[in-house]
Amino acid sequence: MIKEYIDAAISRRQCDTVLKNARYADVFCGKLRKGDIAICGDRIVGVGKYRGKVEYDLNGKIVLPGFIDAHVHIESSKLSPEGFASIVVPRGTVTVIADPHEITNVCGEEGAKYVAAAAERTPLEVKLMLPSCVPATPFETSGATLSGGDIQRLIAENAFYGLGEFMNYPAVIKGDGEAVKKLEAAHAQGKACDGHAPALHGKALNAYLCGGIITDHECEGKKEIEEKLSKGMYVALRHGSTARNIQADGKVVNAKNYRRFLICTDDRHASDICEYGHIDDALRTAVAAGVDPLRAVTMATLNAAECYGLKWRGAVAPFYFADLAVVDDLEDFCVTHVFKNGKLVAERGKPLFDAAEKYIPDCVKDTVHIGTVTADEFKIALKGTRAKAITLTGGSIVTGCETVELPSLNGDVNIADMQILKLAVLERHKLTGNIGLGLLKGYGFHGGAVGLTVAHDSHNMLIVGDDNRSMAKVARELAQIGGGMAVYDRKQDEMLSVPLDIGGIMSSAEPAELVAASEKIYARAYVMGVKPEVDAFLSLAFMSLAVVPRLKLLDTGLFDVEKFAFTDINAD
Amino acid sequence: MIKEYIDAAISRRQCDTVLKNARYADVFCGKLRKGDIAICGDRIVGVGKYRGKVEYDLNGKIVLPGFIDAHVHIESSKLSPEGFASIVVPRGTVTVIADPHEITNVCGEEGAKYVAAAAERTPLEVKLMLPSCVPATPFETSGATLSGGDIQRLIAENAFYGLGEFMNYPAVIKGDGEAVKKLEAAHAQGKACDGHAPALHGKALNAYLCGGIITDHECEGKKEIEEKLSKGMYVALRHGSTARNIQADGKVVNAKNYRRFLICTDDRHASDICEYGHIDDALRTAVAAGVDPLRAVTMATLNAAECYGLKWRGAVAPFYFADLAVVDDLEDFCVTHVFKNGKLVAERGKPLFDAAEKYIPDCVKDTVHIGTVTADEFKIALKGTRAKAITLTGGSIVTGCETVELPSLNGDVNIADMQILKLAVLERHKLTGNIGLGLLKGYGFHGGAVGLTVAHDSHNMLIVGDDNRSMAKVARELAQIGGGMAVYDRKQDEMLSVPLDIGGIMSSAEPAELVAASEKIYARAYVMGVKPEVDAFLSLAFMSLAVVPRLKLLDTGLFDVEKFAFTDINAD
Repeated sequence: MIKEYIDAAISRRQCDTVLKNARYADVFCGKLRKGDIAICGDRIVGVGKYRGKVEYDLNGKIVLPGFIDAHVHIESSKLSPEGFASIVVPRGTVTVIADPHEITNVCGEEGAKYVAAAAERTPLEVKLMLPSCVPATPFETSGATLSGGDIQRLIAENAFYGLGEFMNYPAVIKGDGEAVKKLEAAHAQGKACDGHAPALHGKALNAYLCGGIITDHECEGKKEIEEKLSKGMYVALRHGSTARNIQADGKVVNAKNYRRFLICTDDRHASDICEYGHIDDALRTAVAAGVDPLRAVTMATLNAAECYGLKWRGAVAPFYFADLAVVDDLEDFCVTHVFKNGKLVAERGKPLFDAAEKYIPDCVKDTVHIGTVTADEFKIALKGTRAKAITLTGGSIVTGCETVELPSLNGDVNIADMQILKLAVLERHKLTGNIGLGLLKGYGFHGGAVGLTVAHDSHNMLIVGDDNRSMAKVARELAQIGGGMAVYDRKQDEMLSVPLDIGGIMSSAEPAELVAASEKIYARAYVMGVKPEVDAFLSLAFMSLAVVPRLKLLDTGLFDVEKFAFTDINAD
Repeated sequence: MIKEYIDAAISRRQCDTVLKNARYADVFCGKLRKGDIAICGDRIVGVGKYRGKVEYDLNGKIVLPGFIDAHVHIESSKLSPEGFASIVVPRGTVTVIADPHEITNVCGEEGAKYVAAAAERTPLEVKLMLPSCVPATPFETSGATLSGGDIQRLIAENAFYGLGEFMNYPAVIKGDGEAVKKLEAAHAQGKACDGHAPALHGKALNAYLCGGIITDHECEGKKEIEEKLSKGMYVALRHGSTARNIQADGKVVNAKNYRRFLICTDDRHASDICEYGHIDDALRTAVAAGVDPLRAVTMATLNAAECYGLKWRGAVAPFYFADLAVVDDLEDFCVTHVFKNGKLVAERGKPLFDAAEKYIPDCVKDTVHIGTVTADEFKIALKGTRAKAITLTGGSIVTGCETVELPSLNGDVNIADMQILKLAVLERHKLTGNIGLGLLKGYGFHGGAVGLTVAHDSHNMLIVGDDNRSMAKVARELAQIGGGMAVYDRKQDEMLSVPLDIGGIMSSAEPAELVAASEKIYARAYVMGVKPEVDAFLSLAFMSLAVVPRLKLLDTGLFDVEKFAFTDINAD
């Protein structure tokens, strides 16, 4: 193809597409420049004066390199990769560094590969990072396990672009054999290793970095960010649905250090993407927070391309792939046209590709396996009257542990009028019949039960309720719909549910459909008393994440994260 | 090794070497920071407070990443790779991107590989770029030819890190088949392609870049540099023996664009390296010209590592290779200690490695092959009295063409008292007996002959003189010493010569010895009238470079570069 590019660049041959009268971001010099942008096949061949078979008069609009999300779990959108692509591509995101950690915990390596295979049917370029920590802890029952040996085998495959965020940082710092094996395997293949190192600093950070880890997106505040940058990490500012630090940490970005910043979304729901946007919204937020617009754009384009070795991506220049996002200005970042590999793939917020038909291989179907569930299984028989309860605070995934005093009746706790709910985690992958039981404070719901099969990181079935019968009903509903979210209203005797038919964590529905169904079920949960500051479903999804303090519930029992050991529900 | 690095970083295991009380360049944030620098094996494992088996108290000295020369022809030093390493490593240069274009023109692919094999015996890391344009033109006789097919085969070898500067830019712009074949072969292997594009701009530059070329070191002035940066090229500021633009172009470097600047030496003689320095001198010059010191350092370290994909090189940070240059300050850049892969390899300007024994394979030995040369062969029989002469201007490799009027005698031009000299190029690789004859103005020598076997790019034997006998004598001397430089003083009947026994272009002598011998022969040439503003030998070395205007002499005859065709010496 080089011959064609050269011929088009010198105008011996007509270009395929020319964006006339454009302004464009020169991310190498941090300037806006003017010119026509000439495209031949999949690449930009020149900037200057050009004619093309197809011409778009941009009339001074601004052409940016297509956006790169430096770290995302597509599953967190709750959409299929096709559905995800259909809402992020029109926002200008054309490449994502995706860690399919959630679906891999459910379905193993086939789940990971499914994400890329499904995305391949869309213009979204998915660079797949092999999940490094499946399961998150050895204490729970996940759908799959990737051992050091599995990582050694898989990281050599072309399917995997690098090793996903190494969340188990204590293992790296300890020099744990399995952790080292995984990292060495990635390095042997010359593949990048993403990091996850909240609050790590000093020698512990040095040790973690000696695993050859290049990024962190769990970074907050000037001090932490500067130390990580200075030690060679690329720092990704995050613009997820819950974790968002661009507004606060945008001020740390300056002329001298901005080349090492990235932008990522990590976990962002379909509803937020549909309502506010994706990387475009991150850019808007960054500029509103005072980040120089071209610097912000560079973070979301060239920097990510350099960090991950995405050759000829991330800039508007000859021989670069024609991945472009056209915006009206550098304040609102309203994306009007999106090109991927030279093709117009979205216009005025609408995808120009068909994402309706979904690729759903057998490995991600029918993943919810529980036996017959009866109300009695939710009985909590205490030895005395004092028990440990998990306390939930709105806006945080860190929980507390509180000792509560509560009566019992017929071999079960009596939580009526207690502001305390029952929490249950039912193993749903392997029919072990495991059920972990606990108590929850701070959620604020009554009159039935709420449940979901999205529960980090093993994604077992998590149910909260104030009576055993309602909880059993929700469990059966979730099993019947193949996983998803459900709420049962005892007074109305009404069950509302949203199927997440892909691995029990993602929906094959169209984004608008999923968003509408979610709104309905969320609304009911709030009507039933969930505190306004608490996310009715997402907050629950973190109640079994045993790597975030303090008290969590696994399918195998109540877990004290600080002691990294199980703990008895009886407080005495 | 990861386990050992981690253990050392967290101080579970003692570090091998610790640089105590250091200041160090944080090239990620453009700051000087303080701390101990801990080394385990070949890598830095941490910055902070550390103890080591060996400790150096730096007492506030500044630790920089080891310097990377982004583009160099080692042959231009006239030293063997070992000799070159012995003088640049103590100056802080630990990695070079080397294009062995000269030795390859003489000895072919074996010559190229020799450079890396010889350097391997030293701590200098040589990343070998496969010469892309051998020979420079199809009109002359070189020692070797690398066809598109050869490039396809060789670029796939691990020995070659990338494709060397693509000097034949007209061929790229034309979309010439062989040029495209070479570039496509490099891209197919994912290897970098260096550029060489003096004054190219606009669509011609776009077309050149569509060859997938990433750098340029032939760049001068704000306008040209900015266009090249904006189109994605890394621009190398050059600090060679003749071409030097850091002082003038340092002011183009600013906060927004400096990440895309590199520093290179291209062609720098042993004498300049010994007297002034190497990249250290470039940094000194840059800072004196007003470039921010940490920006200058970043250009010579991290930027080059990023440009060429040198993983974990170019910074002082955990897991980076311990390639370090310790300097007293950021003004004089006086290098006191140099570490390569964690080992102290030079101290106070002296190498701590043995470079005395040279690796000289047969392929680079005995490369000067000419038959019996008699004085008569230098006769120039004109048809009339008017002839074309090459005019030489001090400090420039661009020549002119002047028509001169001169008498003849016995079938030879009579140049006595004419300020005109005879110029001859004798093919010296393949015993073809080719001899190109011409006239030279502007050199300013009389009383004998000067000759050398360094003549870009084919490195035939080039002789200048004012009588045929002296010229023949010099030719025979050069053949006898296996190539080199020689001057014959007719009045004293004295021959001075410096052997360049490696390919006729490099010396196996120690640097000091070569510098002293060169000084002697240069002194004699100036005594014999070479104009002070003209480099007595190097200026001649460009008289046969048929890719630089205007009139040049090849072994095959007089060549008009602008017409890109041979031309008759007779002016009428």
